[in-house]
Amino acid sequence: MELVPIGIFHSPYKTKDEAPHQGRGSEVVAYIEVFEKYIQGLKDIEEAKYLIILYWAHQAKRDVLVTKTPFSDVPKGVFACRSPNRPNPILLDVAELVDRKGNVLVVKGIDAIDSSPVLDIKPFYAEIDVPKEILFSSVVRKESET
Amino acid sequence: MELVPIGIFHSPYKTKDEAPHQGRGSEVVAYIEVFEKYIQGLKDIEEAKYLIILYWAHQAKRDVLVTKTPFSDVPKGVFACRSPNRPNPILLDVAELVDRKGNVLVVKGIDAIDSSPVLDIKPFYAEIDVPKEILFSSVVRKESET
Repeated sequence: MELVPIGIFHSPYKTKDEAPHQGRGSEVVAYIEVFEKYIQGLKDIEEAKYLIILYWAHQAKRDVLVTKTPFSDVPKGVFACRSPNRPNPILLDVAELVDRKGNVLVVKGIDAIDSSPVLDIKPFYAEIDVPKEILFSSVVRKESET
Repeated sequence: MELVPIGIFHSPYKTKDEAPHQGRGSEVVAYIEVFEKYIQGLKDIEEAKYLIILYWAHQAKRDVLVTKTPFSDVPKGVFACRSPNRPNPILLDVAELVDRKGNVLVVKGIDAIDSSPVLDIKPFYAEIDVPKEILFSSVVRKESET
């Protein structure tokens, strides 16, 4: 199972310390350069408002199974948290597609550091990527807040 | 970028034709066997109700860039649709964690076919995996339906 980079992130975050723990809601703009060889795969991508971007955490440690998180003193299993350190350091950002300029996607809501290899891009669909109960509970939460 | 299987899917779907296009909402139960070498990575996974499971579509074609979808006669770029055929056939299921029995996770809401290699497991968090606008629009939709 050998991966090929289909593109590369151009991000203002140059180091792990500069990047946020999570990108959602960030107004920071980043660019995905899709390599020419794969440009046909972008056909009709403008129809998507949000994208799931899978990228490779090229600076991650792959031999870590239990790790501290920023949210607790109790170490967690890597499959029970979102640490970039994991056996297969494939990270996931749900990003807003702001614009497309040829082979370059302009996106918001990312936490990837500069030069991260991009592995895959998929359109995000609430109907398949959000459990029904969560959409429903967000309604309940909103109503109880008002 | 060489991947290692951290486990394997035991799924009732034996062939691509048997599997649904998407697993969300399915009551069908499947099992993820996490290999002994990686079992420490599961520490505290019971705290998650939903998991993002990344798995390898071992029967996918990797040289396809434009493809027909079940939803339209117009072919789309593979990065603009959810076809398993793509340069890096890493598929994603947001599944419900029903139970854990040692190194086996019992999950619902999957579309993986039997024996698919499992690459990564992450806890799903609405706060980071669902765009704010989508949670909000689900509220609007619900209210307009009532």
